[in-house]
Amino acid sequence: MPREVRERQMLDAAVAVFARRGYRAASMDEIAELAGASKPLVYLYLHSKEDLFSACIRREAEALIAAVQAAVDPGAPADRRLWNGLRGFFAHTAAHPDGWAVLHCQARTHGEPFALEVAALRQRLVDVVTRLITETAEAGGCTEPLPEVEVAGLAHALVGAAESLAGWSNERDGTGSCERRTAETLMNFAWTGLENLRNGRRWAPARS
Amino acid sequence: MPREVRERQMLDAAVAVFARRGYRAASMDEIAELAGASKPLVYLYLHSKEDLFSACIRREAEALIAAVQAAVDPGAPADRRLWNGLRGFFAHTAAHPDGWAVLHCQARTHGEPFALEVAALRQRLVDVVTRLITETAEAGGCTEPLPEVEVAGLAHALVGAAESLAGWSNERDGTGSCERRTAETLMNFAWTGLENLRNGRRWAPARS
Repeated sequence: MPREVRERQMLDAAVAVFARRGYRAASMDEIAELAGASKPLVYLYLHSKEDLFSACIRREAEALIAAVQAAVDPGAPADRRLWNGLRGFFAHTAAHPDGWAVLHCQARTHGEPFALEVAALRQRLVDVVTRLITETAEAGGCTEPLPEVEVAGLAHALVGAAESLAGWSNERDGTGSCERRTAETLMNFAWTGLENLRNGRRWAPARS
Repeated sequence: MPREVRERQMLDAAVAVFARRGYRAASMDEIAELAGASKPLVYLYLHSKEDLFSACIRREAEALIAAVQAAVDPGAPADRRLWNGLRGFFAHTAAHPDGWAVLHCQARTHGEPFALEVAALRQRLVDVVTRLITETAEAGGCTEPLPEVEVAGLAHALVGAAESLAGWSNERDGTGSCERRTAETLMNFAWTGLENLRNGRRWAPARS
């Protein structure tokens, strides 16, 4: 079996075990067994538990960011781009609940080298959203541009809301069938706003 | 010195050390030294590192929830209640950055008993927000009530956005001077919505 395929199997197994047990409690024995490989081969290919965890973080983060970027059509109107980006995000986190658990829950504890890695990758998501909000404001009737610090704040708010909903959605439904509804909820929250919601206005994907 | 005072000093020291080092790397020696107490006395009063960490989580979470509840005037209009709740939240997380770091970063790793404790306390915040959104929708012109699952989703989105902004705000500015601006950003995000923001509409605390 080519090394590439073997390594992918090892990473798949590692993501599943890290998601379930956490970094500290996860054992290389369990990872090797789940991957159907010998422990020495896992060490030969991926060096150490620490390197393996880092490789999991990088792979899962790249896949998540790629899924969001692939979902957005740059030529679409602003609300449609946001809608598609959110659908891409929730479809991916629903389809890869273990990967999401590693990124969002397991890798965040401070004092570990991984927290910095996750923070850097999260910042890339924030950057994508920051650009989207800036372009949205420019395309709209904003008489003066939103201050940069406020755009950054809005982007952090949106990413935090999406993270929170991904966890909530995965806990309720592991099958991923409600990703569309979760994206709609966040669209209504972030785009329409609570003030409009309470007045009976809603955002709907068909509108634009 | 009364035991109560001593215990408070020990908890203050523990929160500071756990926030900086994380649960695993934190040492009881450092906590005792920072508290100006002997290590045996720390163990006598607070039993174990695990119990001490649990006590920190409980104290910091209770204080945060109390701060939010105290900030909200139940008789005020909906947007004013949300505004005051958010200001209470960000004022507290800005004034207690170590407590917030323990709750939000250190205690979340799965596989530890603390994660469940933090999840239960986070749920109480979600419940407060869920009630607020339900009452808001009832007070507004909502012709039919929002579905329960959507209200729960909106509440999770708002709590996630607030968590994300608290971390961002504390990283930028440890002095707490920008808590009002952070609350305004989230008000504009959650209440007014991005669609209105891009059309130049804003929420302002003076309006209602």
